[in-house]
Amino acid sequence: MADNALILNGTMVADRIKEELTSRVEALKAKGIVPCLATILVGDDPSSATYVRMKGNACERLGIESRRIHLGAGTTTEELIAVIEQLNGDEDVHGILLQHPVPHHIDERAAFEAIAIGKDVDGVTMLGFAQNAFGQADYPSCTPAAIMAILDHYDLPIEGKHAVVVGRSPILGKPVSLMLLNRNATVTVCHSKTEGLAELVRQGDIVVAAVGKPAFIQGDWIKEGAVVLDAGYNKGNIGDVDYEACLAKASAVTPVPAGVGPVTIATLLKHTVDAAERRVFQP
Amino acid sequence: MADNALILNGTMVADRIKEELTSRVEALKAKGIVPCLATILVGDDPSSATYVRMKGNACERLGIESRRIHLGAGTTTEELIAVIEQLNGDEDVHGILLQHPVPHHIDERAAFEAIAIGKDVDGVTMLGFAQNAFGQADYPSCTPAAIMAILDHYDLPIEGKHAVVVGRSPILGKPVSLMLLNRNATVTVCHSKTEGLAELVRQGDIVVAAVGKPAFIQGDWIKEGAVVLDAGYNKGNIGDVDYEACLAKASAVTPVPAGVGPVTIATLLKHTVDAAERRVFQP
Repeated sequence: MADNALILNGTMVADRIKEELTSRVEALKAKGIVPCLATILVGDDPSSATYVRMKGNACERLGIESRRIHLGAGTTTEELIAVIEQLNGDEDVHGILLQHPVPHHIDERAAFEAIAIGKDVDGVTMLGFAQNAFGQADYPSCTPAAIMAILDHYDLPIEGKHAVVVGRSPILGKPVSLMLLNRNATVTVCHSKTEGLAELVRQGDIVVAAVGKPAFIQGDWIKEGAVVLDAGYNKGNIGDVDYEACLAKASAVTPVPAGVGPVTIATLLKHTVDAAERRVFQP
Repeated sequence: MADNALILNGTMVADRIKEELTSRVEALKAKGIVPCLATILVGDDPSSATYVRMKGNACERLGIESRRIHLGAGTTTEELIAVIEQLNGDEDVHGILLQHPVPHHIDERAAFEAIAIGKDVDGVTMLGFAQNAFGQADYPSCTPAAIMAILDHYDLPIEGKHAVVVGRSPILGKPVSLMLLNRNATVTVCHSKTEGLAELVRQGDIVVAAVGKPAFIQGDWIKEGAVVLDAGYNKGNIGDVDYEACLAKASAVTPVPAGVGPVTIATLLKHTVDAAERRVFQP
């Protein structure tokens, strides 16, 4: 398999998703509806600002309205929740994205929970999490959904495979584990307290890296022929996987950049269009 | 370790929980509050009738009021939900347990979701599931909570251990996996589509059997020294684990009966008392 790994082209997967959205956005506009995503950025973290800008720009390129709300670093939880509630009640807004992390003094969970479930296009509410865990979510968290979309785009089998997920965050490790489980993978969830991590990762037919540490997953941890999905995005465009070393072992791997990232954004756009359609067709 | 396994005495763990509840029930009664669990049985399934009766009787032995509602097999989803909503609004009822499974024509999920989160002492709602997944549930599902209580009662270490859960139901396999994960175990979830099940179970430092098949987990699947928790309860008082064979390998094991079952019921009582106290002390 050495150096023959299939590069899973996230940009291409994202383009396919966006292509399909174009006609749906036009159909909505013909009915007088402009799909609209409200993004909320709190404070001045440069990475967060970049992510929000990328999402807003991606909306606009597709004809989706981007309502960009930038709140000061001193915003209180109550003030943030008031903004979210206003957006909940605004009929012209179909999706709400609160960029995380928010500043430490804010109760992030309370803010997430304030988002109406019908506008929770990023799948951050508890109810959205549970719906996803039960295979019933309208809007699963975007990065986990992107990982599944990449597997499906390339017809990579999931059922009966052993998936090893490294990371257990509420918006990535946990939901992607449950999505893989619901698709009949056997799932192992590893994290910072895991003992014998290399041996466990080596069992994975599918490996999902969601650690947030650059090049943390080593090439010799990867089983020959495994499918590797790298959801990490660290400074200097480095993923959570030692990409070059991994290429020599894996059968398929997502690069960073142009892997999971663009599909995550495309998924967010798709959810926003889905939400707008639900408003029109199931009022 | 042969034949030296510690028998994890669920009856004793349950008695400890109930002992601690006695004085709390008395304190509530001194304030004029009688903790009350409403149980709803739909139809005439004899096992379900037995379970509900056991729960009701356990309440009464502890001085908790047992409001027993028995609905006919022909009850519709709407009728069931109406009953639940009445109980939600009844200030004298602190906990609501809908015995499952309900008859097939009823939308069980819709009925579960009708239970107010503050009275969901059996942890069956989606919101309750998510709160538990995030380590924030007032009332995690009773059987998963019972498994954790047994581990804790016997001071069996969880952090860094590899837990293998066989089963992925919404009220058992999934929530117990998330609880073990939140306690820093590395968790593998197996199920009917898992390939190489024996080899995977053999990795478990902690094995949770939640399959619903009598004596399904074989003794030679158990790693020497593993802790085995059997949440199964099949006809003829047989668990999901081949108990005798398992005794020879495990360091500790729950019997059936008198293992997880009584702790599950004690946990339900505890949640009901918790709910009554919340009503009094955090009105």
